[in-house]
Amino acid sequence: MNQMSSEKKVIFAVKKNEDFHEWYNQILYTAEITDKRYPVKGEHILRPYGFFIHNRIMSIISEEWEKQGVEQALFPLLIPEKFLALEGEHVAGFSSEVYWVTHGGDKQFEERRALRPTSETAIYYMFSQWIRSFRDLPLKVHQTCNVFRYETQQTRPLIRPREIHWNEAHTAHATKEEALENLENAWRSYMYLINDCCCFYGLRLRRPAWDKFPGSEHTDVMDTIMPCGKVLQTVGAHYLGQKFSKVFDIKFLTSNNTTDLAHITCYGISTRILAALLSLHGDDYGLILPPILAKYQVVIVPILPIHNSHAQTISQLLQSVGIRTVVDNSQSSIGEKYYYWEMKGVPLRIEVGSRDIEQNRVTVCIRDTRSKVYLHNADLIPGIQHHLEELTIRIRNKAKMYHESSIHNCKNIDEIKSAIEKGGFAKFPFCSTVPALAEATVGEEAVAEADIGEAAIGEEADKIIHELTGGEIRGSSPFDPPPPDGSICAVTGRLATVYAYAARAY
Amino acid sequence: MNQMSSEKKVIFAVKKNEDFHEWYNQILYTAEITDKRYPVKGEHILRPYGFFIHNRIMSIISEEWEKQGVEQALFPLLIPEKFLALEGEHVAGFSSEVYWVTHGGDKQFEERRALRPTSETAIYYMFSQWIRSFRDLPLKVHQTCNVFRYETQQTRPLIRPREIHWNEAHTAHATKEEALENLENAWRSYMYLINDCCCFYGLRLRRPAWDKFPGSEHTDVMDTIMPCGKVLQTVGAHYLGQKFSKVFDIKFLTSNNTTDLAHITCYGISTRILAALLSLHGDDYGLILPPILAKYQVVIVPILPIHNSHAQTISQLLQSVGIRTVVDNSQSSIGEKYYYWEMKGVPLRIEVGSRDIEQNRVTVCIRDTRSKVYLHNADLIPGIQHHLEELTIRIRNKAKMYHESSIHNCKNIDEIKSAIEKGGFAKFPFCSTVPALAEATVGEEAVAEADIGEAAIGEEADKIIHELTGGEIRGSSPFDPPPPDGSICAVTGRLATVYAYAARAY
Repeated sequence: MNQMSSEKKVIFAVKKNEDFHEWYNQILYTAEITDKRYPVKGEHILRPYGFFIHNRIMSIISEEWEKQGVEQALFPLLIPEKFLALEGEHVAGFSSEVYWVTHGGDKQFEERRALRPTSETAIYYMFSQWIRSFRDLPLKVHQTCNVFRYETQQTRPLIRPREIHWNEAHTAHATKEEALENLENAWRSYMYLINDCCCFYGLRLRRPAWDKFPGSEHTDVMDTIMPCGKVLQTVGAHYLGQKFSKVFDIKFLTSNNTTDLAHITCYGISTRILAALLSLHGDDYGLILPPILAKYQVVIVPILPIHNSHAQTISQLLQSVGIRTVVDNSQSSIGEKYYYWEMKGVPLRIEVGSRDIEQNRVTVCIRDTRSKVYLHNADLIPGIQHHLEELTIRIRNKAKMYHESSIHNCKNIDEIKSAIEKGGFAKFPFCSTVPALAEATVGEEAVAEADIGEAAIGEEADKIIHELTGGEIRGSSPFDPPPPDGSICAVTGRLATVYAYAARAY
Repeated sequence: MNQMSSEKKVIFAVKKNEDFHEWYNQILYTAEITDKRYPVKGEHILRPYGFFIHNRIMSIISEEWEKQGVEQALFPLLIPEKFLALEGEHVAGFSSEVYWVTHGGDKQFEERRALRPTSETAIYYMFSQWIRSFRDLPLKVHQTCNVFRYETQQTRPLIRPREIHWNEAHTAHATKEEALENLENAWRSYMYLINDCCCFYGLRLRRPAWDKFPGSEHTDVMDTIMPCGKVLQTVGAHYLGQKFSKVFDIKFLTSNNTTDLAHITCYGISTRILAALLSLHGDDYGLILPPILAKYQVVIVPILPIHNSHAQTISQLLQSVGIRTVVDNSQSSIGEKYYYWEMKGVPLRIEVGSRDIEQNRVTVCIRDTRSKVYLHNADLIPGIQHHLEELTIRIRNKAKMYHESSIHNCKNIDEIKSAIEKGGFAKFPFCSTVPALAEATVGEEAVAEADIGEAAIGEEADKIIHELTGGEIRGSSPFDPPPPDGSICAVTGRLATVYAYAARAY
């Protein structure tokens, strides 16, 4: 059995709360999630145990897209330089991070090709080929693939690699309303994936204008509060409006025989989902995996070699109802086996010894509570299913409580500073409507002029917060009601119009 | 419904037997399998309808690998130039086809990185990190990913793209015997995928020494005879021996406390599987898809709008037992719908009209025979399942007959020439043992000297065949008995020792 190999008999012993980043690095390595020893910076291996969870995440979201008529495809990795340059904000946002391919064999290309930093330009060129009339709309595709960003910031496995494994969806619509509705449907699927399956939470925010996706009209994200108190963007969903349609000439004949430009949305998730769920659920003994994502949901440990055949029988019984199991009949000691599978985050461990067999029962150890229960053989299958569900609910609730208790209401800059130092979000009344939010709610043309001024004030306030706290304004929630009339901006002392959220961020 | 969009109401009308290559190009485009209009040569889009089949193929083989303990992972795309150069034959085989990444943003790298043309070097570097003792063996991983080859030959969608979508497996073993046994297990899975699921055939051959995978001890392939009579390598499986272990230092402590180098195998399949199955089963009306791979196994066409709800009921009924269906209630005419779904290769079409409803039946049109049968409503589910199975068996048998009847026994060079012109394989007694085959059966050291001479004679004979016929020696079958004593080589007139196979090839 590979899992118990010579290199791997490591008992995990770094305290998560004392040094989260060290805990994170060590658990990824020790639990065989990733390996960062490959000698190209930012290129991390997703090892089988980690890939399994990542692949479950990608499969769940693919099934969601399939239900919504978003069809899976594969688009090119190589982007002609001129494509990337077409949308001005887009190229400005990505040009410093692009890997360039200059040669094929000995031949130098006349035009360099970029490794896609994201696939808008490749996909929208094809959209312009495929879309002719309103009957071709909506056109909705997604792909699970690799993208590349030459990050100058510190690279981190799963969080900030230079080769990113992700799923990106791109859709074209006849109207803005339909495009925005499509984004809401996408959000419902992301919430299902993240809350229901991955058992963690985050705050959906609309990014301020100075921090939106390059080339978008507005950017909505989920920011998840990590155990260190810094926030991590775990979802990005963008309304691109007609900007890319204009430069890629994605026009269509309407049902009235006029022509119009398509309204485009795009949205994606990456291995950051995996990073967040591992980080939020893990403890000082190692990982704790949500059962729906775990490669092994139950590990069965025979106490002595004579108990092995009984362990195998239990394993087969559980597998017959779709429970993923592994029997550890390796040479390691019982203690080593317990520590090892706890570290790997397997939700339940069944111990099978002579007393268990005599009494027609199994001993079940539950990973998150580290408590023991006995299950009579007759109750084995429903009992195991029950404990898997209960564990799921417990770790989800715990993550929800952590999320909710890490959002701090603040009235002034001192409170913001202290909240950000505590970790999590500072929520405070703010004067500068985050322009992209105003644009969506107030109407497009009217606010354009005013926006520029407001954005400048907003960005200035963001700088003040950053100087004082190390945090930044991450956006406003589309679900918050506005502050009561007469509320005062926590940063500038002007009248407040929205609640804003600030935090330190990855 | 996207499938019936304005651009796509094309009735397919190229004769497959008159101009196979034109048929191939047109059907890929018309059936929305691939699109080659992306402006980087050799970068083809796998569209949703094509991706579905490709993804089914990749899923089936992944499940096979999982059963064999070959675990899925993801390794880096970018390979340091020095890695590629470590194994001399390997770099010589690939260097002219490598895409080079030279810059990240504005920064030029000190050492160029290659886009992997195949992943041996990246994976074996990691193997050297992971393998310490015999307990770490066997180590078996696979990945579904993109690789890049700057092909100078004509690019063709699915067959010879420059971005290749494939699945590659890599395994390390303590002994040569175990490595070779692992390859035989892999072959069983490939046969299941190709014969049972994709319903086509091929010849398993050991490539001659001058045509093996760069860096391998020997290369076994499947060559599939395409409708044009040229053969296409659809599987590659390689025994790498200890060559890569030597240069990447993959050594392990044996159970006797000595050290040894791991024995390595690798094997892979690409979109060529898709290319072959589409090509072999299709006809003048378009595609014919094996039901197990088809996105839609049954299309249901209501004759009039009033029959739509009945069509939906049938669709739901079939879906409830896992049959993949689509109801075509678009604005197109009935004739357009029939031609369209025939062209797309949907195995069965159900027509629902007033007479059908009155008589409690449905009309079923079978794609390959283009015949009609009636199914009583009570027999709907078993009847549809039966006809899907029967179609599967028919197209598989047809492909098998085509394969078997395209291997021609030849005694001399004239017969070889005429066989190759006819299309398919010329099989003939041959004097030069294909050295890699001899090596495996006779023993390694003894034949090394003799091999060099034999390989030179073999390669010379290959040149003669190529000059005269346009074909090439593709290898020998490990399953053929040797020619009868005293048989004469069809090319050189020396004594024959093996049967060889020659064909024109992609």
